[in-house]
Formats: sequence, C-alpha cells, structure tokens
Amino acid sequence: MTDTSQQIFVTTALKSWDVWTARAGKLFDSLSDEQMQAEIAPGKNRAYYLLGHLVAVDDAMIPQLRLGEPSYGHLRGPFIDSADKAVADPISIGELRQAWKIVHEKLNVHFEQLSPAEWLERHATVSEEDFAKEPHRNRLAILMSRTGHLSYHIGQLMLISK
Amino acid sequence: MTDTSQQIFVTTALKSWDVWTARAGKLFDSLSDEQMQAEIAPGKNRAYYLLGHLVAVDDAMIPQLRLGEPSYGHLRGPFIDSADKAVADPISIGELRQAWKIVHEKLNVHFEQLSPAEWLERHATVSEEDFAKEPHRNRLAILMSRTGHLSYHIGQLMLISK
Repeated sequence: MTDTSQQIFVTTALKSWDVWTARAGKLFDSLSDEQMQAEIAPGKNRAYYLLGHLVAVDDAMIPQLRLGEPSYGHLRGPFIDSADKAVADPISIGELRQAWKIVHEKLNVHFEQLSPAEWLERHATVSEEDFAKEPHRNRLAILMSRTGHLSYHIGQLMLISK
Repeated sequence: MTDTSQQIFVTTALKSWDVWTARAGKLFDSLSDEQMQAEIAPGKNRAYYLLGHLVAVDDAMIPQLRLGEPSYGHLRGPFIDSADKAVADPISIGELRQAWKIVHEKLNVHFEQLSPAEWLERHATVSEEDFAKEPHRNRLAILMSRTGHLSYHIGQLMLISK
C-alpha cells in the first residue's frame, strides 16, 4: 500500500468527525436559548449542560492528543466533574455557543496538520511502555472515541420536543 | 510506513466498534423484557424497537460491505422503514436478543478476515466512478458510520430510568 492509502484511512476517520460535529453544530443552532435551558427529557440533563459538556470534553482533546493546552480548562469542573444543576451555571449560553465554535475550529486546524504517521503516535494517557504493546492506543483512537461520545449525546439531544 | 501501520489503522477502528457493541450488548442484557417494552422517555421509542432497529441496521452492513446477504432482511420493514408502534411487533424479545448476538458474531467473523486493503475498497452504495473521485467512501466508512449510529442510540437507551 502507498502513502496515499494511509491518508485515506485518516480522511475516512476525519469525515466521520466532520459529519457529527456538523450535525451537533446545526442542532445547537436550531435551539433557542430558552430551549437550551429545558431538560432533554423529564429529570435529565439540559441541552445547555450537554453543550458545555461537549465543549469541555472536546477541548480536552488538545492535551490528550499532545498538541498543547486546553482553551477552556475551567469548564471541566462544572461540565465534566459535576452533574447538571449541581453548581451554578458558569458561563452564558451565548459564550458557550461561541466556545463550541472556537474549540472545533482549533481542533480542525490541528487535525489538518497531522500526518498519517503522527495520527498513529501515542496519545497522552498511555505510557510509552504500554503503547509499545498496544499501538492502537494512538491519537486516532482519541478522535474516534470523541466522535462516538459526540454521537451518543446527539442521540439524547434529538429527543428534545420542539 | 509499513503494512503493520495499515493494520493499526484498521485495529483502531475495530476497537471502537468493539467498545460500543459490547456496551450495547451489556445494556440490553441488563434490561428485563418488561423494561424493553417501556418507552425510553415519554412518547419516545421503546427499547424493544431500538434493539430491533440496531439489529436491522447492523445486519444490513453485510450487503453494504459487499460481503453477502443479510440474515434478517425481513426486519427492515418494521424496524427501519416503520416508526415504533406503527406496525405489530414482528418478533419476540427473546428472538430479537438472539438475533443481536447472531448478527454481531457474523459481522465480527467477516471483519477479522478483511485485510487493510480490502477495508479501503468501495462500499456497495457508491458507484465505481464516484469512488474513484472519493476514495473515503470505503468499507471502513460504513464501519465508522454504523459505530456512530450505535453510540447515538445507546445515548438514548441510557436515559431509561431503572
């Protein structure tokens, strides 16, 4: 196989990421600020919380991919470590919508620059020793895991009655 | 890059598939037949329907990957073309649980046999002409798409109050 086919593997995974991030962006854009404050089903998370959760989780890919520092590390506490409504809302819906765009633009700039060989390098939460034995614990695995995480929550957001 | 790295790309994608199919299997096993008949949220699909939907969609990967005929083609009508409760339940919960296992065992046998080069061959719903221009429309894209489809519905099933 050629270097071209290496690139096709990466492009295939990135296309899947693109499909789900586009779908999420469109979905959040379609919800009014009032709808964002409503629970997706009785007693469940608000769309506001899920947007914050997805911003915090996707932003954390930057250090997980060993590409730098997160932009919204302060959102980890309220949107990953805490359940919805456990703490006061730390950011306005407007700022959160903006953060979504910034995080995904930054990620996509990084993603376009990584070569296929760099995608197969280890991610930050596996040691070099373990990675030698389990080479599938690479950056691409983080991308696929976060794509699955995104589609998981989109499935929930789709239950919102408009 | 070597042939080994080609295999790592494929293994990474298959690991993601394995994670989500295992999670789904465990989730369905944890639900009683009575819980399977309950709606995941008021007015939404029953878990029974989502299990049938996932069996039908994943079974349809066989022809989509150009690997043969589906085993449960008759479930397409009630579980893909029809909404929940639009038609009489076509299969018992016990048979559906069995179908889930059979479909995924068959898929995994196929998946283990495909070489990296075969994963990059076109899937059934793209013409050879279009595929020449868009080589990311390959078998791996189907695998990733169905992995995302699965996690999307698992997110919904997780909302069931036990």
